[in-house]
This record gives sequence, structure tokens and C-alpha cells, in this order.
Amino acid sequence: MSEYRQDPLSRRWVIIGSDRAARPNEFVEEPVRRQPVPCPFCAGNEDETPEAVASYSAPGTPNWLVRIVPNKYPAVTTDEALCPKCPPPLGSMSPQDETIAAFGCHEVIIESPRHVASLSELTLAEAELVFRAYRDRIAALKATGQFRYVQIFKNVGPQAGASLEHVHSQLVALPGVPDVVTQELASCREYFAEHHRPLFSNLIERELAAGQRILAQTDHFVAFCPFASRFPYEVCIAPLASQPTFEATQTGELGELSRLAGDVIGRIERTGGHVAYNCVLHTQPFDTSPHDHYHWHIEIIPRLTKVAGFEWGTGCFINPLPPEAAAAHLRSSPVAESRFDRSV
Amino acid sequence: MSEYRQDPLSRRWVIIGSDRAARPNEFVEEPVRRQPVPCPFCAGNEDETPEAVASYSAPGTPNWLVRIVPNKYPAVTTDEALCPKCPPPLGSMSPQDETIAAFGCHEVIIESPRHVASLSELTLAEAELVFRAYRDRIAALKATGQFRYVQIFKNVGPQAGASLEHVHSQLVALPGVPDVVTQELASCREYFAEHHRPLFSNLIERELAAGQRILAQTDHFVAFCPFASRFPYEVCIAPLASQPTFEATQTGELGELSRLAGDVIGRIERTGGHVAYNCVLHTQPFDTSPHDHYHWHIEIIPRLTKVAGFEWGTGCFINPLPPEAAAAHLRSSPVAESRFDRSV
Repeated sequence: MSEYRQDPLSRRWVIIGSDRAARPNEFVEEPVRRQPVPCPFCAGNEDETPEAVASYSAPGTPNWLVRIVPNKYPAVTTDEALCPKCPPPLGSMSPQDETIAAFGCHEVIIESPRHVASLSELTLAEAELVFRAYRDRIAALKATGQFRYVQIFKNVGPQAGASLEHVHSQLVALPGVPDVVTQELASCREYFAEHHRPLFSNLIERELAAGQRILAQTDHFVAFCPFASRFPYEVCIAPLASQPTFEATQTGELGELSRLAGDVIGRIERTGGHVAYNCVLHTQPFDTSPHDHYHWHIEIIPRLTKVAGFEWGTGCFINPLPPEAAAAHLRSSPVAESRFDRSV
Repeated sequence: MSEYRQDPLSRRWVIIGSDRAARPNEFVEEPVRRQPVPCPFCAGNEDETPEAVASYSAPGTPNWLVRIVPNKYPAVTTDEALCPKCPPPLGSMSPQDETIAAFGCHEVIIESPRHVASLSELTLAEAELVFRAYRDRIAALKATGQFRYVQIFKNVGPQAGASLEHVHSQLVALPGVPDVVTQELASCREYFAEHHRPLFSNLIERELAAGQRILAQTDHFVAFCPFASRFPYEVCIAPLASQPTFEATQTGELGELSRLAGDVIGRIERTGGHVAYNCVLHTQPFDTSPHDHYHWHIEIIPRLTKVAGFEWGTGCFINPLPPEAAAAHLRSSPVAESRFDRSV
């Protein structure tokens, strides 16, 4: 028996646990091949990318472990001449047919000098530096005063929109607040006005009490499959304490977060084959009132099902795997075997 | 130079015409193979599907051309015991963690007795009957009084979420109004309150005057690439006159509509290879005030680009092909060569 469920943060509806997982599939998708081309992100090929805006190495060593470069094929333009004329576009209504130059900043976070594909394959040092890079880049772009939001995301595998295999994330700094974040802020604000406590605090408390959708809890973080997951094995990682801005995360907590994220993604990958996935970091916009009681979080979105006509038409996602079953399966996954030395 | 644009109906933002189309792609996707399995939708295999709820044949012939059956693997349940207890769920906020049995009706419209894959391969008689089936099923499900919306959609090709190749559409009747439609209704209502004429009338008038995004105009319909297209070669087909409900379309106009839709999809397919696509029909919900000034329309969504982390995180789509260039390319497509006899 399938169910309608609604996500309290995004307010998206989903249909969970339908019989559709049992339907026959006539089509056989072959694993996607990678062409044998030189990788612009590997150590030694730094000339293939624009000059780094920042880089991180292990203490006492000269070689970079994580390197941030401007995107060579940006979705937005950093032409500053366009900035002052540009009203904050996203999230507010524009006049009809008005086109606004897409001012913004598009960077790539190269997460290892080695040619590996997934966050789960990083060394502990690399993974921690990735999250430190996220934090530092958000803070640096905030300090320019030109942007209202930085969207950090990750596309792993061609089915998830990646065009290069080498492990990397991207960030796009935007002059306005994206619609998805605007809706989340509104949900948090309305919940606090009614209940006098943050929506996410209540959500995490209920998830921990119920337990059935919890994957892991560490000193400062929790990972769970959301009640209204859109996709099989979708996971949310969030701090236990109410914390609106990711850039306020303490350095000491970033290692813990990176180990948790790597563990969760490894578990998803061990459900079978080459699982493509997206990651999305949601944090409070730069000029938002602290009274919004937002809570930063990371969404991990495996791409095992296709988005189809029903989803485009309705905004409601059909997810054949209940998150309770997904969490049980991911919890039962054996501890990762180290595919390489995860020390530096 | 890329641009931010906003769609006046859905209010979605897009980034149009970025440099990202030029970026290298390491991955080689092989054409998806179809397994040599018996097709449950071909003439002669009617026992493989549930009993038809309706079927259509050419005048004076006994054999069906279009056949509507309950979906054997439904996303929703028709168990009527669940209906009276079920408040309209979609589009309104539900209490936390509440699961609602997914009452609804999920049907398949088999569009030809022959094993072809796309709407562009139908005979004129088949194509007209497909749109007549859409109209009649919406009217029949409306008459039950159990539903508030019928979402009709089409998934062609595995990249668009199809699991079977044989040409078909699906419909899901829902007890509530989907979020996407609720937003479109609100946009139309607000526009009318401010401008005293329907949003869509203004939109079509401006598109016809500008001409650059128009693909075709017939006696009663227009096809154009939307100003804020999310996807390369996205097309909207709508009636020229203000008409909120698809089910009010006159029988005489359905042939004209089906020829236009088949022509547009044929042009998209001739841009190259096996183009997967989704179609979505948006019409006025059953209990909506006529004062909403809605306008039914069909969205054709080619799946040439992937939805990735930026889209999930922001709700804003990156579309490397400006709709003006897409429309010019589709207009220049040669007239379709008949791959078969399109007469009955």
C-alpha cells in the first residue's frame, strides 16, 4: 500500500512505497565508459585549469590535497560591471520577459590529487579539507558583499550530471536566494512562530526517538533517511545542535562530519554497482534574519530512479523504497573495507 | 553571456545560454538496448494487461487503435474504502509525520496496436484518438466525484523514465491538486487581478508578436519554446483562445492538436539520435473557480541534459541552449518524411 507523505522543510509531497518497483523493465543500460583522456584535475595537470583561488595541503608538505579553481565553463559570469545593476533575482518576481545578466561566481573544488571518483575514496585528510574548503569559500564569498547565497553541490557519475570523473564539488555564488532555500526558510520561520522552537530541533528529536530512519549519530551530527524521501537511499546529514550557518562549524567538527559523510556514501555505494549521486549543502543566506531559526544540512541524493513525467507535472516524487527500509538496509551494510590507505 | 530568466506561470528561475555546453565530457553513453521480450501492449497480447476501461477503433472496424487499461504496477491505490477518510492531501500542509494512504487511479493509454515508440510514429487516426482518450478519461474521472485532478503524462525512452518501449501515456487521478498546478493557478489569478486579462492571453500575444520563439501556429493552437525553458528544445503547446479545461476541447480540434504535437516531437527527434522526452498536460483542477483564468497547455520536455546538484539545491535549471536558438533550429527542420503510411 503506497502512501502520500509531505516533507516539513521543503513542503514537497511524495508517494512512498508503491508497487512500481516490481514493474518489468525492457531496457538494459550499459555501464557508462570513460574515454581514455588526460584528466585536468589530476596532480601534474594544474596547467589545464585556471589558477587556483585557494588550495590546502597536509601540514608540513608542499603538495596540495584539495584545490579550488574557477570553473572553466561557468554557468554564471563574474563580470563585476554587471553586479551593481543586478537586483537580487532569484526568489522574487521579475517583470515579464526581462533577462538579467547571470552575475555570480562558479568554482570547482578538486578533492584529491589522485584520480578517484567518489567522496568515499578520499583519505581522511582529504575529506576533512574538502569540508574546510566549503566553509572557507562560503566565508570568503560572503565577505565580498556581492552575493546573498552560495550553493555547494556535487555531481558523481554521468547519471548525476557529472562530465568529469575525478572527484570534485562545485559552488555557485548567487546574488539572490534560490527558491528552494526561500521555501525552507519560510517553513522554519512559520514553525518557530507557532511552536516557539526550531523545526529542525523537533525533527531531529523525533527521528532519534523513533530510530527507524536513523543511520548514524556522532558527537555533533546525525544522518537519517528523510520521512518524505524523494529517492531510494536519500540521506540527510545535519548538526544535532541548532546551527543556521555552515560557515560557523568549528574546525574540530569538520573531521567528524567528513568521516560521517564518507561512511554514508560508502554504504549507499555498497547497495550495488556504480551508484551515481548528487550532494547539496543548504545553509542560511547571508542577509537572513537569525530569527528564521534555520538549520544547515546536507542532502545526499542517489540517482537510482529516473525523474519522469509525473514528477515534472506535479512536483510530487514517486519513491518505490520507503525510507524506513532504506535506513535498515544501509545500517546493515558491513563496515567499509579500506580500498586504500586512508591515512595521509 | 548567460542570463537569469523567470517563467511567469511556474515562477521557476532558469540560467539560460551559459558556456557550459562547450565543456568536455569524458563519459560515453551507449544507446540503451531493449531486451527481446514479448510486448504486453502489442495487439494480440491483451491478456498481459488488465481488462480495458475504454478502447477506440477506427469507424467501421472491430480492432482497437487506442486502448486504456489500469496500470498493473500502480503508484496509487483505487481502494475506495480509503477515499472518504482521505482529505485532499497535495498542495496543503499535513500534520507532521502523517502518512496518508495514496488513494488515486493510475491508468495506461496504449496509443497503437503496432510496436512503435513515439507519438511522432502514430498514424493520424491513432494520434487523434490518443487526445480523445485524454479528454474522455479526464471527463469520466471528474464525473466520479472522487478526484480533484488528473495528471496525464508521457515518458518516452529510458532516460525519460520509461520502462516499456511500446508507445503509451499514463494518467494518475489524484484527490488533491499538485503543487506545480497550485502555483500556476496562483500566478494566473494574481495576474488577472492586476491586469484584468488572462496571463496566458498576454503571453501568447507577446510570443506571436515577437515570433522568435514560435514554432508553429494552427487555426486553434500555438507551439513555442518558452522564454524560461528549463531544457534544450522544451516546447509548450496551448490553445490560442483562453480555455481553462482540456476536457472542453471540441472533437474537431483534437485532430489539429494531435498533428501539431506529432510534428513538434518529430522535429525534436530529428535534432539527433534517440531523443528521450516527457510530455505533461496541465489543465484546470475540477473544483477550481472559473475566475482563476487558467489556460490548459502541454509541456514537451526533451531529456538531452541531466538534472544535477545545482538544480536540486536551488530549484533553478541551467539550460545551455537559449529557446530562441532552439526554436530557430526546430523551425528549420525539414518536413517529416513519412516513415510509414500515416493514413489509417
